[in-house]
Amino acid sequence: MPKSKTENSAYTYTGHGWKRFRALNPGKGMYHDVRRRLPYYWSDITDALTYRTIASTIRMYFVNVLPAIAYTLDMYRRTGEFYGVNESLFSSALAAMIFSILGAQPLTIVGITGLISLFNYTIYDIVVIYEPAIYPNFMCWVAIWGAIFHWIVAVCNFCDYMRYVTDFSSESFGAYVGIIYCIKGVEELVNEFTVYGSTAGFLSCLIAILYFLTIYGLEWLGSSTICRAWFRGLLADYAYVIGTIFWTGFSHFPGTLKSGGISFVPITKAFFPTQSRGWLIHFWELEVKWVFAALPFGFLLMLLFYYDHNVSSLTAQARQFPLKKPAGFHWDFFLLGYTTFLAGITGIPMPNGLVPQAPVHTDSLTIYETDLHIINTTCDPSEETEIRRPVIKATAVVEQRISHFLMGLAIIGTMTGPLLIVLHTIPAAVFAGVFFIVGWGSIESNGILKKMIFLLREKRFVSRDEPLLTIKKRKIGLYLACEVVPVAACVAISQTIAAVGFPVLIIAMIPFRVWALPRWFSDEELGVLDDLTASNSAVLGSLGGMPSFAGERGGNDAVQRRHSHQQGAVRQRSGSISR
Amino acid sequence: MPKSKTENSAYTYTGHGWKRFRALNPGKGMYHDVRRRLPYYWSDITDALTYRTIASTIRMYFVNVLPAIAYTLDMYRRTGEFYGVNESLFSSALAAMIFSILGAQPLTIVGITGLISLFNYTIYDIVVIYEPAIYPNFMCWVAIWGAIFHWIVAVCNFCDYMRYVTDFSSESFGAYVGIIYCIKGVEELVNEFTVYGSTAGFLSCLIAILYFLTIYGLEWLGSSTICRAWFRGLLADYAYVIGTIFWTGFSHFPGTLKSGGISFVPITKAFFPTQSRGWLIHFWELEVKWVFAALPFGFLLMLLFYYDHNVSSLTAQARQFPLKKPAGFHWDFFLLGYTTFLAGITGIPMPNGLVPQAPVHTDSLTIYETDLHIINTTCDPSEETEIRRPVIKATAVVEQRISHFLMGLAIIGTMTGPLLIVLHTIPAAVFAGVFFIVGWGSIESNGILKKMIFLLREKRFVSRDEPLLTIKKRKIGLYLACEVVPVAACVAISQTIAAVGFPVLIIAMIPFRVWALPRWFSDEELGVLDDLTASNSAVLGSLGGMPSFAGERGGNDAVQRRHSHQQGAVRQRSGSISR
Repeated sequence: MPKSKTENSAYTYTGHGWKRFRALNPGKGMYHDVRRRLPYYWSDITDALTYRTIASTIRMYFVNVLPAIAYTLDMYRRTGEFYGVNESLFSSALAAMIFSILGAQPLTIVGITGLISLFNYTIYDIVVIYEPAIYPNFMCWVAIWGAIFHWIVAVCNFCDYMRYVTDFSSESFGAYVGIIYCIKGVEELVNEFTVYGSTAGFLSCLIAILYFLTIYGLEWLGSSTICRAWFRGLLADYAYVIGTIFWTGFSHFPGTLKSGGISFVPITKAFFPTQSRGWLIHFWELEVKWVFAALPFGFLLMLLFYYDHNVSSLTAQARQFPLKKPAGFHWDFFLLGYTTFLAGITGIPMPNGLVPQAPVHTDSLTIYETDLHIINTTCDPSEETEIRRPVIKATAVVEQRISHFLMGLAIIGTMTGPLLIVLHTIPAAVFAGVFFIVGWGSIESNGILKKMIFLLREKRFVSRDEPLLTIKKRKIGLYLACEVVPVAACVAISQTIAAVGFPVLIIAMIPFRVWALPRWFSDEELGVLDDLTASNSAVLGSLGGMPSFAGERGGNDAVQRRHSHQQGAVRQRSGSISR
Repeated sequence: MPKSKTENSAYTYTGHGWKRFRALNPGKGMYHDVRRRLPYYWSDITDALTYRTIASTIRMYFVNVLPAIAYTLDMYRRTGEFYGVNESLFSSALAAMIFSILGAQPLTIVGITGLISLFNYTIYDIVVIYEPAIYPNFMCWVAIWGAIFHWIVAVCNFCDYMRYVTDFSSESFGAYVGIIYCIKGVEELVNEFTVYGSTAGFLSCLIAILYFLTIYGLEWLGSSTICRAWFRGLLADYAYVIGTIFWTGFSHFPGTLKSGGISFVPITKAFFPTQSRGWLIHFWELEVKWVFAALPFGFLLMLLFYYDHNVSSLTAQARQFPLKKPAGFHWDFFLLGYTTFLAGITGIPMPNGLVPQAPVHTDSLTIYETDLHIINTTCDPSEETEIRRPVIKATAVVEQRISHFLMGLAIIGTMTGPLLIVLHTIPAAVFAGVFFIVGWGSIESNGILKKMIFLLREKRFVSRDEPLLTIKKRKIGLYLACEVVPVAACVAISQTIAAVGFPVLIIAMIPFRVWALPRWFSDEELGVLDDLTASNSAVLGSLGGMPSFAGERGGNDAVQRRHSHQQGAVRQRSGSISR
């Protein structure tokens, strides 16, 4: 389909006179998204006939469902038991079906995130001050308003501003999400202590830590040079499967372990809502004053999803993946309005793009080759003659919609009675472990941590072609401070009733990057410290082309590319963001 | 003192006619040991005036006392509460005093090992079948016979055969000791479950695992290139101090942790034996038939110490340390006879050289410099221009006897009432963690594991100058089997009443290496697979010179030396053996 290449360039605003204002071109982005992607629809199905699709389906099922249930355990307790496991599974299944069949970018996995859990229970905390009974209806209206704002944003092409998202804000967001997840893991364990007693608490801590070490160790082995490549691939693909089955079995061992009294996933009757209600929320029964009180929350919900969903989509199409098929941000955000609406009127948590897990789907579909990179040093005979390094190359991505669709079917299967009972055998402690592994993955691979480690390292051991060496330490420190302060602020307000406001803080980082940072840093410095999160032309095509400040990056692209060539692509650990 | 150089060559048997039989030269080795070392005695004191002595004293106090108490917890339960903490501290203090003041090689730390604990409680298991009451007197006679055999071996110069000890047997021994330690750690935790209940058990597991991860992480950070060199040095030196204080404090946190009900080190009245008896064992009250029944056990004890103590001394003077002062195996083994005798008649566990901890003392006294090694690759312009690696060089060792002496004084201090109470605050779980860290250290750095990993690795990523590449995989497998089978046999019999026999198995590996292995492997193969554990001339001087099969190693020495030059010296993790 080479003709789509010319179509890609069709979506632009440069040189359009008064029509350059995006809001004056209703639906233009969506129209181009669909027109650009539709020719690939058939290949999205036929391309799926490979083993990677199966491995990806299984891995994503675990990486999607385990955290979703983990957040639900937390949300269940903190929303007066309104949102339960059935609601979460329904929401995940609904999102998977809609986005795998209708989405412009089926690589972006949509489901329950920790932030929507935080959002929902913070609103619960606010609502109970006034009238606890209205919570379901109130949430429904939040979703309805949210859906309306989604559609406005999609129609007015405002997703274009996502092209200004650089590592500056996406790293901060990743760090924030990682920290929140680790906090959630601790809270989950604290709950074991307070509700089920010390024995259950200590055993849960033990299982959570060992689960974390198991997954971490298996993924580490998977990226080593031990054994054959296919065996390492298996370890990396099925780390979650192996870890979850093992530690679930462990917790059921008869004797001391079984009598430890730890808690398991609470389940209710299959296909029925957790509380005794119908699937349709009676939103028309809400008083008018509350309907309008829900409006600002709906706006905040849209802001949250605007950043969270689009960044998740960006990282799923980040620069390290050799993607060929085009993106479609406007169309997907429009669809997200629909899922938000449906989630609202059925009383299930609103799904959106999964941030830390987003790149894992693309990664699980990427064909990696571990090449041998021999560095010849024969010019100096006193040294060793050569150095051998494994270089992992991403050669292609199996871009298709079947793995996403099959994962959705698997979630629907999980909603049935017998499989719910299987789910009930998993101890809550495993989910605390899931929080830690996903959260730590997001922190460990974060550019903020990497820059901090760079500052701490003895300079003489740093390779001379490290781009950061060209920048003053003071400047790196200032840049880090600009990233860390918003993260700390977000983490702090997340512990309060003002938590719903955090999307404002995160989104404010984008204009801050575009207008404030260039005053403190030279273009060369920003070129080294920062980078577009997705610089792929297939991605930028859907966002109206390169952002205007891209020119400032000057010749550094070459440095960066050479640098990443030496290291090779890094296999995506679940939970790692952007690089 | 350059004149000692000529004296070194004085101890030899080549060209001595009928006097070449070692037993016909009584005391010759001991005489030469003392004559060789005595000129250094004053410098052994004056050389100590440096900071490294203080760091070494503190580190060795923890690395010596913590495992000693850990074994005592085990031995206390399994010998009818005969050997307690007071006995162990007394034994460690006695050994430290004698060997630091009188020892020819004061670097070799002498104390309570896991093997003497195994030896003592296996004899207890045997004795209780007949007459439990005679255990103290019986052990005393085992020690008396053991002491006599020690003196015979020392006088007849039989320590010379230690020069035949190669990595073949010392690696196997290291792996065996490591496995036993890990098993002991698990047994310690199981004891918490059975005696103190599930809550205490799970909390203990948690503390043991986190203690392990703390020490491991601190030592890992200490060998990284993070922060300044002095700061890394502090982390490596005081990892045990930091970890022990932190997790002891953790276990005393009021609330859930404090009420977990875990056990602490059991203490009794200061300076008194654990049981109500005097310090002198009434060995003359034992029936004559039991006196002679103790003889073979005394012989086994001597065999155990012959291997254990001398190998510990060899590894403390292993080839990676740039030692200058001479060794003295015969004299030290003679002294060990005295400590064995004294331990016997006072009813304390017999001290001997600490195998996994032995190289840690030398390491803590070694002055390391982290150099920058730049590998120039400018000959190939498409590659990166240089690679920077940290190379850790051992520049000198502070060879002195003060750190050993001060450590002994600190142990005597610990025997006093107030400090015993401090000791009582340490939870038994921390000692399980000590077992794991010391045991795993011995396994992780073991040549057997390294060869196994080599076999598992994809060959194309192995540097071409790796000597193992010159050998057929089948041959490496055969060599590994020859090492692993004795280890497995030793571990297996350690679980039975035949455990006292394991020294025979280990010692049998030395002649097996000398006579059987050369039939299956060529000289070149053995040159790569095996190496003398200590090839230092200062060490071999005390053992009658190079062993006769040393010639078979041909030109491989050069290969090995170049290889270790590239990697740099590896900082000794506590518990690591020989390399």
